[in-house]
Amino acid sequence: MNREILLVEDNPDDVELTRLAFEEAQVANTLTVVRDGAEALDYLFARGRYADRDPQDLPSLVLLDLNLPKLDGREVLQAIRNDERTRALPVVVLTTSAEPFDVEASYTLGVNSYIQKPVDFNQFVWAVKQVGLYWLVLNQPP
Amino acid sequence: MNREILLVEDNPDDVELTRLAFEEAQVANTLTVVRDGAEALDYLFARGRYADRDPQDLPSLVLLDLNLPKLDGREVLQAIRNDERTRALPVVVLTTSAEPFDVEASYTLGVNSYIQKPVDFNQFVWAVKQVGLYWLVLNQPP
Repeated sequence: MNREILLVEDNPDDVELTRLAFEEAQVANTLTVVRDGAEALDYLFARGRYADRDPQDLPSLVLLDLNLPKLDGREVLQAIRNDERTRALPVVVLTTSAEPFDVEASYTLGVNSYIQKPVDFNQFVWAVKQVGLYWLVLNQPP
Repeated sequence: MNREILLVEDNPDDVELTRLAFEEAQVANTLTVVRDGAEALDYLFARGRYADRDPQDLPSLVLLDLNLPKLDGREVLQAIRNDERTRALPVVVLTTSAEPFDVEASYTLGVNSYIQKPVDFNQFVWAVKQVGLYWLVLNQPP
């Protein structure tokens, strides 16, 4: 496991906001961005355009949006939990939705944590900082 | 779901330390303590001496030690994840062990997060404060 964060996010504004928030929060881990659910799985399982990656070289944390092109976040989560190589990988949903249906489905599919993106920028920075501190400093990864 | 934290811990010193750390961290949620794995499940499923509890009244967070009398933490975690009523309940392992075997087993059994108890008191307070902030303020519960 390396010290990388994999951000699965199709909205370019949200990608930029997350990058800025990690900078503000002085989270120095490499942020790798993939833009849809299929690309996320290609990355994690070293397939397709990521076939030259080492599939054992997993990120420390996956930040997963729910509404994604091709495969949505729930399907990505399910694929991660159904594969022995990635079953224990920490996955945090980071999404605008706070729909009870989305929250329940994510926990049932085995997400580690579910964070609703704050709309206010300062609160967004605070949230991303807490996520970074918690998962990259405090939590013991598998 | 109420705003209670269920601490499953058999060591009285660690219970006291956790209580002090939550006070220091100004985490105001009720801390309920159970002393072994069997009591934890009786509490959650409203059985035995807890038969008068409402089984739908679940805590916001379970802090689970691994080495416990009667049923150990792994067995408690497995029982929580195997029951539909508690499948989505946030469970954080809080233990002195950082054995890779314990960490892997906990993630495989579906723990949300794994925290090694810091030995230093100030670091322990900091860790408990972060756990409180993260799971009781930032995280969206099921």
